[in-house]
Amino acid sequence: MKLSTRNQLPGTVVSITSGEAMAVVKIQLAGGEVITSSITRDAVADLELVEGSAVTALVKSTEVALAVL
Amino acid sequence: MKLSTRNQLPGTVVSITSGEAMAVVKIQLAGGEVITSSITRDAVADLELVEGSAVTALVKSTEVALAVL
Amino acid sequence: MKLSTRNQLPGTVVSITSGEAMAVVKIQLAGGEVITSSITRDAVADLELVEGSAVTALVKSTEVALAVL
Amino acid sequence: MKLSTRNQLPGTVVSITSGEAMAVVKIQLAGGEVITSSITRDAVADLELVEGSAVTALVKSTEVALAVL
Amino acid sequence: MKLSTRNQLPGTVVSITSGEAMAVVKIQLAGGEVITSSITRDAVADLELVEGSAVTALVKSTEVALAVL
Amino acid sequence: MKLSTRNQLPGTVVSITSGEAMAVVKIQLAGGEVITSSITRDAVADLELVEGSAVTALVKSTEVALAVL
Repeated sequence: MKLSTRNQLPGTVVSITSGEAMAVVKIQLAGGEVITSSITRDAVADLELVEGSAVTALVKSTEVALAVL
Repeated sequence: MKLSTRNQLPGTVVSITSGEAMAVVKIQLAGGEVITSSITRDAVADLELVEGSAVTALVKSTEVALAVL
Repeated sequence: MKLSTRNQLPGTVVSITSGEAMAVVKIQLAGGEVITSSITRDAVADLELVEGSAVTALVKSTEVALAVL
Repeated sequence: MKLSTRNQLPGTVVSITSGEAMAVVKIQLAGGEVITSSITRDAVADLELVEGSAVTALVKSTEVALAVL
Repeated sequence: MKLSTRNQLPGTVVSITSGEAMAVVKIQLAGGEVITSSITRDAVADLELVEGSAVTALVKSTEVALAVL
Repeated sequence: MKLSTRNQLPGTVVSITSGEAMAVVKIQLAGGEVITSSITRDAVADLELVEGSAVTALVKSTEVALAVL
C-alpha cells in the first residue's frame, strides 16, 4: 500500500494509556524523539499494539504547523 | 511560550513551493528525515521562511495515525 | 500494512485539480457518493494518480464531525 | 445552513462508547460501511445522540488522505 | 441543522485569495479578531462567498491546541 | 516563538474535564465566546492548566470550515 500521507516516521511503541473511548500511544523514533498519537481504543486493539510494537507514525502535511524562535 | 502540542520536531527548511493560496514547505530533521508541511502562503511570508531557516515542526497528537506492517 | 485510521472508503478517482502546491482530488465511492480530498501536488505525482485510479480514502476518526437535522 | 465541508455522508448511529472526556460514535452509511467519529462527550449529549439517531458524518477535504494498493 | 462541532464563531468575510485548488478566506469576528480558513476553491464557489458575506467559522475541538506564555 | 498557525485567540480556562487519556478544556475568550479544546491529559499536566489559567487557543487555518445560513 502506498499513502498520500507525506510524513511517515518509523518507531517503537513505548507506552499506551487507554481511556474508555480514546488511547494515547507514545512512539520512540530511531533518532530518539518521542511522538505522541491519540487514536481510538478500538484501533489499539485492532492493531494489537503493545509496548515494543514496531509502528510507523503517519501525519498528513496539512496537519504540520511551523514555529520559528 | 509553552504549547499543548505534543510533537515538536526541530529541523531546517530545505524547500518552499508556493501557490497563490497555500505553500508546501519541506523540513529536514536532525535525524535526516524530511517532513512536509502545508501552510498558507501568508504564514511563509509572516515567518520570513527561506531555505535554511531553522524551524520546529508542530503536530497535535490527534493528527498522528499509526501503521503496522 | 494495517492502519489505525478507522475510516477507509474504497473508490475511483473522477477528477484531479492541481494548483502549484496543493491538489484537489475527487473520488467516487462504490455507493455513488463523491468524496473530496485535498493533498499535496507531490502526493498526486508520487501515487501516479489519474482519472480512473483505484484508491482508498482514509479519514482519522478525530476528523469526523456529526450533524443532525 | 450550507457548509464548506465537502464530505457529508448520511447514516445512522449504531454505537456510542463514552469516556469521561471523549466519545466514539459509529455510524452506518446507507451503503453499509461503518464510519467512526471521535467527538466530545458534551457533543453527544448536546445532539442527544442515541443508537438509531439519523446523522450526517462531516469531513473537511483537508482531512482526507488517499491510499493506493 | 445542529453540529457536534463545538466551536462556531460568527463573522464576516473580509478577503478571499483563490489558488487553482485551494482558497484562503479571512473572516472578521464580532470582537474584531480575524480568523483564517483554508478551504477548497469549490467550496468558495458553492457557498457563493464574497467580501461581506456573513459566515460562521467552524472548528472541531480536537483541532484546538493551547499555548501558555 | 512565532507560529505559522494563523488563528491565535487569547482567553481564560473556565473548565477542565479529564479522562484517562484525553481532556476537554473550555476557554472563555475576551469577547465572551467559549472555545472547546480536546488535548491529551498529559498536556494539561505539562502546561499546569487550572481554572483561571491564561491561555491562547491555536487553530491551523486548514482546520477552519465555514457555514452560511
